[in-house]
Amino acid sequence: MSQLSTNQPVSVSLSSLTLKAHKLEIDTRKHFVAVMSGDCAICKSAGFRSETRVNIENGGVPIIATLYISNSSVLAPGEIGLSDSAWEKLGVREGQPLVVTFAEALDSFSSVRAKLHGKVLTDSDFHTIMHDMVEGRYSDIQLSAFITACVDLNKEETISLTKAMSETGRQLKWPHYPVVDKHCVGGLPGNRTTMLLVPILAAFGLTIPKTSSRAITSPAGTADTMEVLTPVTLSVEKMRQVVDKEGGCIIWGGSVDLSPVDDVLVQVERALDLDSQSQLIASVLSKKIAAGSSHVLIDIPIGSTAKVRYQNEAEILKTLFLEIGQVVGLNLHVVETDGTQPIGHGIGPVLEARDILSVLRNEKDAPQDLKNKSLFLAGQILESCGGIPPERGFYEAQKILEEGRALKKFEAICEAQGGFREPVLASFQYVITSFQSGMVLNIDNRLIAKIAKLAGAPDSPAAGVDLHVKLNTIVEVGQPLFTIYAESPGELNYALHYFQLHQHVILIGEKQP
Amino acid sequence: MSQLSTNQPVSVSLSSLTLKAHKLEIDTRKHFVAVMSGDCAICKSAGFRSETRVNIENGGVPIIATLYISNSSVLAPGEIGLSDSAWEKLGVREGQPLVVTFAEALDSFSSVRAKLHGKVLTDSDFHTIMHDMVEGRYSDIQLSAFITACVDLNKEETISLTKAMSETGRQLKWPHYPVVDKHCVGGLPGNRTTMLLVPILAAFGLTIPKTSSRAITSPAGTADTMEVLTPVTLSVEKMRQVVDKEGGCIIWGGSVDLSPVDDVLVQVERALDLDSQSQLIASVLSKKIAAGSSHVLIDIPIGSTAKVRYQNEAEILKTLFLEIGQVVGLNLHVVETDGTQPIGHGIGPVLEARDILSVLRNEKDAPQDLKNKSLFLAGQILESCGGIPPERGFYEAQKILEEGRALKKFEAICEAQGGFREPVLASFQYVITSFQSGMVLNIDNRLIAKIAKLAGAPDSPAAGVDLHVKLNTIVEVGQPLFTIYAESPGELNYALHYFQLHQHVILIGEKQP
Repeated sequence: MSQLSTNQPVSVSLSSLTLKAHKLEIDTRKHFVAVMSGDCAICKSAGFRSETRVNIENGGVPIIATLYISNSSVLAPGEIGLSDSAWEKLGVREGQPLVVTFAEALDSFSSVRAKLHGKVLTDSDFHTIMHDMVEGRYSDIQLSAFITACVDLNKEETISLTKAMSETGRQLKWPHYPVVDKHCVGGLPGNRTTMLLVPILAAFGLTIPKTSSRAITSPAGTADTMEVLTPVTLSVEKMRQVVDKEGGCIIWGGSVDLSPVDDVLVQVERALDLDSQSQLIASVLSKKIAAGSSHVLIDIPIGSTAKVRYQNEAEILKTLFLEIGQVVGLNLHVVETDGTQPIGHGIGPVLEARDILSVLRNEKDAPQDLKNKSLFLAGQILESCGGIPPERGFYEAQKILEEGRALKKFEAICEAQGGFREPVLASFQYVITSFQSGMVLNIDNRLIAKIAKLAGAPDSPAAGVDLHVKLNTIVEVGQPLFTIYAESPGELNYALHYFQLHQHVILIGEKQP
Repeated sequence: MSQLSTNQPVSVSLSSLTLKAHKLEIDTRKHFVAVMSGDCAICKSAGFRSETRVNIENGGVPIIATLYISNSSVLAPGEIGLSDSAWEKLGVREGQPLVVTFAEALDSFSSVRAKLHGKVLTDSDFHTIMHDMVEGRYSDIQLSAFITACVDLNKEETISLTKAMSETGRQLKWPHYPVVDKHCVGGLPGNRTTMLLVPILAAFGLTIPKTSSRAITSPAGTADTMEVLTPVTLSVEKMRQVVDKEGGCIIWGGSVDLSPVDDVLVQVERALDLDSQSQLIASVLSKKIAAGSSHVLIDIPIGSTAKVRYQNEAEILKTLFLEIGQVVGLNLHVVETDGTQPIGHGIGPVLEARDILSVLRNEKDAPQDLKNKSLFLAGQILESCGGIPPERGFYEAQKILEEGRALKKFEAICEAQGGFREPVLASFQYVITSFQSGMVLNIDNRLIAKIAKLAGAPDSPAAGVDLHVKLNTIVEVGQPLFTIYAESPGELNYALHYFQLHQHVILIGEKQP
């Protein structure tokens, strides 16, 4: 409705917003961070301030980054420093020009605001939000607001979120039926049943293309433990070859890009430690849908230091899982298991891998709890989609394991994934012994996991904790309770220091009458 | 219940967690950020990763910072880099040893989680949360979750939040009664009525120790505009001297530390752009309580591009303000005003200061809307607590202004605050003219403010926009609509570029019948 007066020409262009890329060499995980010099005239004239959200373009799709202003000599005026994540996403090289502008307001965030004022979000709302998130357009602050606003979704919203999450990445299809999968709601150290289930079920003849996660806050994820024995970062093509040949695999889910928005959300969810059943269900089921599974076993361990602490909490979760699984077209079977103590002896990738091998090899000192739980879960699947009659699944699984067919299948899967290697224990070890006699009354899952992490697990795969006692074990003064393994004396010290402050990790006393 | 076995002594101490301080020279605003080298053995053994929350101690009270891992040569192993905010809060010098540990879980955040699951928060919950926030213990993610979870508080919770916020900083007490204050809910460029109200009311004899804010996202805050004419960063002692002598002052609230938690929250609130009446009320009233005010006038401008857009929204806000004001012991008077266009001519500190002076000096071309609105607001206060009869307040205020008593008082206040100086306009100017004839049908408050900001306001105080038309002005082709002022050609260009893309900032056309 008005125009520039022609008698005062002023050159107006976007060229003044071009800055030279500089790699900061800083790891900000999934978040895109950019830094400009406080001496930069462009930065000043453009009104950029610390924490401004900016749009950065390198020809293709722009990224949105959080900007900080620096007065150090690391950046020259006219340069823009980028975090590792931003650097990789933009695919730039040092000194390359980048166009920087203010980020426009994120349209999809208005749905999050509306949710707070009572709106029920639709398929389309969640789809747009998930798309923006996976493209890195949500800041931490906005991710946190989404997670908080959506802590308690209704059933329809949970279904919409599940579907939207499953559509953010690759969707696998298999020429087999059934396609079996399992998931454990988590919180139990050492609970590596997947690595026994897969060879047992594949040896039986079922298809189980298992994608597992790495540790986020725990001392080991299944992918970390499997990686001790064989490569787990496989392309989809390679994964298909393994499954075609052996009927099963155990690979890292991150390498085949299933529900990648989950990786974005999980960082902030962990930081908030919110308990959202809707988000838990959407996270789990979106990955199963994307993985092309038809039948999924959900394991909910219940225990005072497990993720699910009470029976009634487990029941509500179970009902929700079943209801939503049905709508999204998954055959779910949910079991509740004992979550009062760690499973097996080892906690940490190498120690857990050693346990798995000892069960597969039917060694005498193999952890019976790990073996029995795995046989129980495998049995459930054999009964629900393997044609094995009720009450016979456990024994069928036991036969496959004890006849060595599971070991053979496991070795064949490792071979197909890139070759098997034996685990090697860490050189620095420290034995914690009991200073009183009595009965083991409690083992704190969270504290024992923390000690394993401080010892270096999972980044140092051979680090961790090896438990020598279980609940109800009778111990004498001086009897070993557990051994801490570390790859360096410093890490061993750190774990020991934490133990000194948290000696109640294992509680020994008189058995209550 | 167990102990370290004595036959394998291991030295366990905290010494391995001591790192040398290094200033990164990076502005992360209120947030504490720390960076460690990826090559640092301590960092590795301790399990520190990017985005870990760490506790950093320098003898006194520890801070909690967000950690990032860097592989650049900026940091040597054994060093910890700190953002400007963390550096200042810890009060360290280069190379000084700092003890770094994992941050313990923040107890008060469990109240935020509980709120999400239906808990009504208490006085004590809010008190603890606000205390932790003001100490910098909440991460951005946690602040965002708090703001989101508390978007819709009930009346009792809003009262608790208001009180808790007012207790986080200094609380002023005055030996006078009444102690007058005002607040505008905001969103109107150029709306500097405070700078006229204070001298009028002080000249009348009321006590009005006004603390104002600086711009956060606007082209000027009252403190920025006042600072053009006189110093505004005053100590509490100096503030008291000014008020004792002149009955009023206009200073920057940040310098006297009232409700400092508001500064922490406001950053995240702006980033989310959530509309929370509870938080708005708590933010405003907590500062008034801390400032020791007895009578407060609240101005709610209503307009499609103002903060409050609808009449019914204003009514709800007004009722809530009055209800909560009563409980927390403030005499509130709430008025709704016209928010459809900017007030005065100038937008930006110097241009607004020039407007203020022209009204105080009774100049012929002084903006009448700014004058009349200020007289209306001053009149409301004179009637509600100055003993002036109903309907006479406006005229009493007019008399004080037009007799030059307000100017004299304003000059005396400036003198007491540190001396008066005349504003100087910026050298780079560009006149935007109309390319059609017709009537001014709309002026977009947000877009015109954005142009003033891109021109450099408020960091360049003389930058901004000078409006030459108002709603309903009849204009001819080529008639000046507004002038952009900047302190550099680059900033001028940037504002012009934005205008080219948003020419509808001023809408001219046929008047609708």
